[in-house]
Amino acid sequence: MKSVRDLIKAHENLEREVYLDFENSSPVLPEVVDAMLPYLRDCGYGNPALTHKPGWEAYEAIREALEEIAGYIRASSPEELNFTNSDTEANNLALLGGFSANRKLGKRVVISKIEPLSILFSAHMLKKNGVEVVEVPVDGQGFILEDELSKSVDSETVLVSIGLVNHEIGTIQPIKELVEVVKDRNPHTIFHTDASDAYGKIPFDVEHLGVDMATLCSHKIQGPRGIGALYVKEGVKVNRIIEGQLGTQSLWPGVENTPAIVGFQAASRLAFENLHEKMQRLKGFRDRLITETLETIPETLLNGPRGDKRAPDNINISFLRCEGEALTIELSLKGVYVSSGSACTRRILQPSHVLLAIGRKYEEAHGSLLMKLSSRYNKEDIDYVLKVLPQAVWRLRSISPL
Amino acid sequence: MKSVRDLIKAHENLEREVYLDFENSSPVLPEVVDAMLPYLRDCGYGNPALTHKPGWEAYEAIREALEEIAGYIRASSPEELNFTNSDTEANNLALLGGFSANRKLGKRVVISKIEPLSILFSAHMLKKNGVEVVEVPVDGQGFILEDELSKSVDSETVLVSIGLVNHEIGTIQPIKELVEVVKDRNPHTIFHTDASDAYGKIPFDVEHLGVDMATLCSHKIQGPRGIGALYVKEGVKVNRIIEGQLGTQSLWPGVENTPAIVGFQAASRLAFENLHEKMQRLKGFRDRLITETLETIPETLLNGPRGDKRAPDNINISFLRCEGEALTIELSLKGVYVSSGSACTRRILQPSHVLLAIGRKYEEAHGSLLMKLSSRYNKEDIDYVLKVLPQAVWRLRSISPL
Repeated sequence: MKSVRDLIKAHENLEREVYLDFENSSPVLPEVVDAMLPYLRDCGYGNPALTHKPGWEAYEAIREALEEIAGYIRASSPEELNFTNSDTEANNLALLGGFSANRKLGKRVVISKIEPLSILFSAHMLKKNGVEVVEVPVDGQGFILEDELSKSVDSETVLVSIGLVNHEIGTIQPIKELVEVVKDRNPHTIFHTDASDAYGKIPFDVEHLGVDMATLCSHKIQGPRGIGALYVKEGVKVNRIIEGQLGTQSLWPGVENTPAIVGFQAASRLAFENLHEKMQRLKGFRDRLITETLETIPETLLNGPRGDKRAPDNINISFLRCEGEALTIELSLKGVYVSSGSACTRRILQPSHVLLAIGRKYEEAHGSLLMKLSSRYNKEDIDYVLKVLPQAVWRLRSISPL
Repeated sequence: MKSVRDLIKAHENLEREVYLDFENSSPVLPEVVDAMLPYLRDCGYGNPALTHKPGWEAYEAIREALEEIAGYIRASSPEELNFTNSDTEANNLALLGGFSANRKLGKRVVISKIEPLSILFSAHMLKKNGVEVVEVPVDGQGFILEDELSKSVDSETVLVSIGLVNHEIGTIQPIKELVEVVKDRNPHTIFHTDASDAYGKIPFDVEHLGVDMATLCSHKIQGPRGIGALYVKEGVKVNRIIEGQLGTQSLWPGVENTPAIVGFQAASRLAFENLHEKMQRLKGFRDRLITETLETIPETLLNGPRGDKRAPDNINISFLRCEGEALTIELSLKGVYVSSGSACTRRILQPSHVLLAIGRKYEEAHGSLLMKLSSRYNKEDIDYVLKVLPQAVWRLRSISPL
């Protein structure tokens, strides 16, 4: 294998670059960096718990960010939000801290078969400690089987966690209905939704949905890494899972990362500005990419639903007789940056558990590409992807032993 | 109470500003921000686990940061370092994850009475789960009582955690000796040191000290928040305490925060550059501040040792008949930003447990100020603090009922 530096070097003189791996990481938007810079350098760099100017500035900045972000999800109070280091930590806090604080309610936790690894693996951690974990199956497009969900919730079910938008295949769950299914069976069961792929991408209202907890993510809307949030409805009990000095956030210790919080706020504002227009633009790009890819490249399969029940930014396609990882490298060398299935599953060298859950065979899951779009892209970017993709697939298939 | 905005406004037209609360939070150094900016905006914004250019750039940046930081603490391999979100998370990982992975060794954990809250409270979390926690006392200057330490370690002791430099009173523990005391009693006991207040402030060598784990911190050397690291000696077992997608860091999940890692690396380089010169400069400032304060202001007590066994940047003085919090506000209005004792203890509205542990009475602990210095300050900054401090103390004492 070439050295990593050689690989980077092989990218010189690219015709165009189109980054489509917003699932895993993102460049921070320039306006967001600009909003963060004063808080990195000049002001608000103090501990918001403290009694001096740089601390009070931090306190004010954090309070304003909480209010603004709470507004976007229609939380009834900024106190219902807790900043955490990212969506990973928020999901762990919801599951581990949510179960721990409510263990007197029973010993079962219910998740779906297509949750991200921070949910799946923290549920496994609970399992090791004697908690009964049920994984509810989904249909061929990733929608939760409501009958199965209903059956899985019993009088001992402490917590249910089902994502609002699936991170890999973009399925938008009817969470309000799912909450009703769960609460009908057991009104005490706490409902958590990982809304990382919904926040700033589609509008939602935590009170209308009826969820007790929701995870929000900064980096998926091109805010900085190192920040996320957990919405916890007033009255719902969650224990801390990490201990230390408490500042303004009751559920996560340590002095607040004010520049990251300010960046998260700025990215949120940009995401929610003209959200409906952006959704339309993204849907146009998405549907064109899906349709033309499926039409022009044979032996391809769309993973996840079409239309309004699919996240506007999500494209996930299986390319038969193509190895996903090889395809990402081939595309990278042309300046198109995508991930193969979910990065979550890449490190464990197994095909995506999400794709297997919707009924894809091993080889179909193995050759899948996940692309997430930005509304800042233009027609030429999409043209370029549609030019480069068939060439890459053709080349790999031409040397494939299959 | 005035509104926070009014308080901030009352700081207009300051003669000078001297920030001395590096314990709790810091402005990021301009060179560090400059090092981070390309990674926020233009390059290395990908997932380092992934197969595309922005991911490979991230991989390279992270690998170089690990190598450089490992070098500063003389770790034998960069693989012995794990990035975490901060020192708080690293301390929790060391205690909770270290105990969990080695629970077959016994059921006791030993800490000192002067550890920071992330150590103290994570030990309490273990205690709630049936672990026996012993808190070793210290002498009047904060040095661990070695006989007591020796007595506390038994054949069932899984882990000992004692900070290298105390975060509040600057006591530099003879960690190499303490490790020997512990290993003499039980060679299987794992020794962790929170080196957050040592890293980049005084030189140390993890192999020479003989520690099994060490916590490093970015924000205390004016790197960004949201990043820290845990050194784990090869062969020492630690379990993850948070679960999710694994990238290059085996002990903390989630996609790496590359800009913060690059910032941590840049701040480390600046801190270790001419470290001995900086230490001399800081000691000069420190000793002048201590000596002149104790000489010019009556009823004052230095907390912690003097001379080479005190961290070069640390000043902690009790002002009798002065309420610490009121004094921080008074000083803030003159542009001098300090904390009252430890911010860690502020939120729980108790005097610092560290000051009580070294034998200070309630009222002595209550009126304490913690100041940490930067080697970038100059003589005029120190002059200014020495001008403003006696005035503030005098004013508060003149209205004190005591």
